[in-house]
Amino acid sequence: MATRWPTLIEDGDGLLILDQTRLPREAAMLRLTTLEDVAKAIRVMQVRGAPLIGATAAYGVALGLAADADDARLGLVIETLAATRPTAVNLHWALARMQRVLQKSAPATRRDLAWREARAIATEDKAANAAIGKYGMPLLRAKWNGNDPINVMTHCNAGRLATVEHGTALAPVYAAHAAGIAVHVWVSETRPRNQGLLTAWELAEAGVPHTLIADNAAGLLLMQGKVDLVIVGADRIAANGDTANKVGTYLKALAARAHDVPFYVAAPLSTIDFACASGAQIPIEERGAEELGAGAVPVANPAFDVTPAALIGGIISERGIAAAGALVQWKS
Amino acid sequence: MATRWPTLIEDGDGLLILDQTRLPREAAMLRLTTLEDVAKAIRVMQVRGAPLIGATAAYGVALGLAADADDARLGLVIETLAATRPTAVNLHWALARMQRVLQKSAPATRRDLAWREARAIATEDKAANAAIGKYGMPLLRAKWNGNDPINVMTHCNAGRLATVEHGTALAPVYAAHAAGIAVHVWVSETRPRNQGLLTAWELAEAGVPHTLIADNAAGLLLMQGKVDLVIVGADRIAANGDTANKVGTYLKALAARAHDVPFYVAAPLSTIDFACASGAQIPIEERGAEELGAGAVPVANPAFDVTPAALIGGIISERGIAAAGALVQWKS
Repeated sequence: MATRWPTLIEDGDGLLILDQTRLPREAAMLRLTTLEDVAKAIRVMQVRGAPLIGATAAYGVALGLAADADDARLGLVIETLAATRPTAVNLHWALARMQRVLQKSAPATRRDLAWREARAIATEDKAANAAIGKYGMPLLRAKWNGNDPINVMTHCNAGRLATVEHGTALAPVYAAHAAGIAVHVWVSETRPRNQGLLTAWELAEAGVPHTLIADNAAGLLLMQGKVDLVIVGADRIAANGDTANKVGTYLKALAARAHDVPFYVAAPLSTIDFACASGAQIPIEERGAEELGAGAVPVANPAFDVTPAALIGGIISERGIAAAGALVQWKS
Repeated sequence: MATRWPTLIEDGDGLLILDQTRLPREAAMLRLTTLEDVAKAIRVMQVRGAPLIGATAAYGVALGLAADADDARLGLVIETLAATRPTAVNLHWALARMQRVLQKSAPATRRDLAWREARAIATEDKAANAAIGKYGMPLLRAKWNGNDPINVMTHCNAGRLATVEHGTALAPVYAAHAAGIAVHVWVSETRPRNQGLLTAWELAEAGVPHTLIADNAAGLLLMQGKVDLVIVGADRIAANGDTANKVGTYLKALAARAHDVPFYVAAPLSTIDFACASGAQIPIEERGAEELGAGAVPVANPAFDVTPAALIGGIISERGIAAAGALVQWKS
């Protein structure tokens, strides 16, 4: 584990990110030094995963204030980063937090303050995800017979690559693996961007047994009793518990319900948008046709879908596990 | 339409098939002259689609008896073709029919008889699918407001490319289009083999508006009210109406039910396996890991799943539309 590639680290007056568009073919760090570098990295998904996008955007504010940090520049920097991706609320949460802290202070002090606050966000993300692992792990332990691997299904990548450290959906898996619980993960390919290959890559790195499947195979595996537990991440959770996550999540939730397999969402509190009453208010990002790779064929490419709270067995955060319909207990 | 590529035609003492592994990149006919040619074409999916596999296998028997047609050879030919793919029952139906006809006659007459019977199977397939179009079309007409296109979702390719002519799931779509009903088709990519690209190709050829989506997007589109009707094909329908079709079908059926969108299966009677009591008895073909294209990552790749009869609004065959639980009326 000592040689693992970090997803995001400071590097002098710049930022090093693991370029996720090159994984799993090759692992390579990319240096970002400007606002534009960071905005592009988020937009083209060189960094991805709701929590990691939030932390990266916070550092993006710091980079964006390098030469000039007056109110106009601060406004422009926030606006530029906010426009990169619409669905993941952690992005907006991190930017709102940066703005709140920075607008109270004089322009001359903002640059240092921005670096400090971004660092705090990154540090808190690690701690939150470690707590998600701690609270989620007993779900696996409770289902384990002490011998055969417990089978967890996930979708997209909500592992360490989607965060500063530990992951969200995979944090309980890593915690279970570390505790000696045998665990095997069904990894969905996650078309059209194939983030399942990122999940397979990081599970292999961590020594956790796993099997890649086409997204289409999830229903059959659940029907065949080959899945004990489904855990996914989230890009935005509405106040009523409806959860936007990578497109395809909803289909897994329906199939899990059809076979009485528990379906959990794991996400830090920063993913909950209490200003958003229900899933119907969550904007769904439409991405480019080229992601399907089908040439001139007409394409629709929504990047997320919404899983109704009624299909979610519980939401795992750094505060514990709550029913999806009872998130108000975590407000502030 | 005059210039359309046929899926299967006789060519002297051989067979010309449209090589579907080269579509949609290029359309090219491939000449098959031996039993081994046909077995390989089915196995590697140069021909695919349950009804087309059945007709091709019938011609494969004729080719396999070219030099020798005694009982031993006939047995070997049938056995070789039967071993190519396990799930599509039309293959076994066609081979059983060929065997029944041929074993009654003297070896010297079998070759000609085999060509005649294969030709009959191909001709009957066209007629059956035309009837499916006729019986299914009113489902679209009933939902059409006379103006906006009716939105049909399908999965995999159950169009003319999966049959000798007309298609199964797409037969009602083509019939509606010909009748002046505005129709738009949501085409699922259908990982891992991307047969959705075949569906897009043939819909473009026929001038039917369509949009390609990642398989993962089906739930969102149904939730958003963008789908009026789901029609899929079938590889084997059990006596109780449980239906094996391309993996991912079951997820669409679950999502259609969640949003009260009718879900229909279209297939000729040769797809119904009355000897198979329920979906649990249908063998599910496991295909190679290389179809996922993920290198050394461990892979599971089931090619089909089973949709329970309870999720199916009706089965459209050349005899009309029956409730999935009432197929016995078609047993003869």
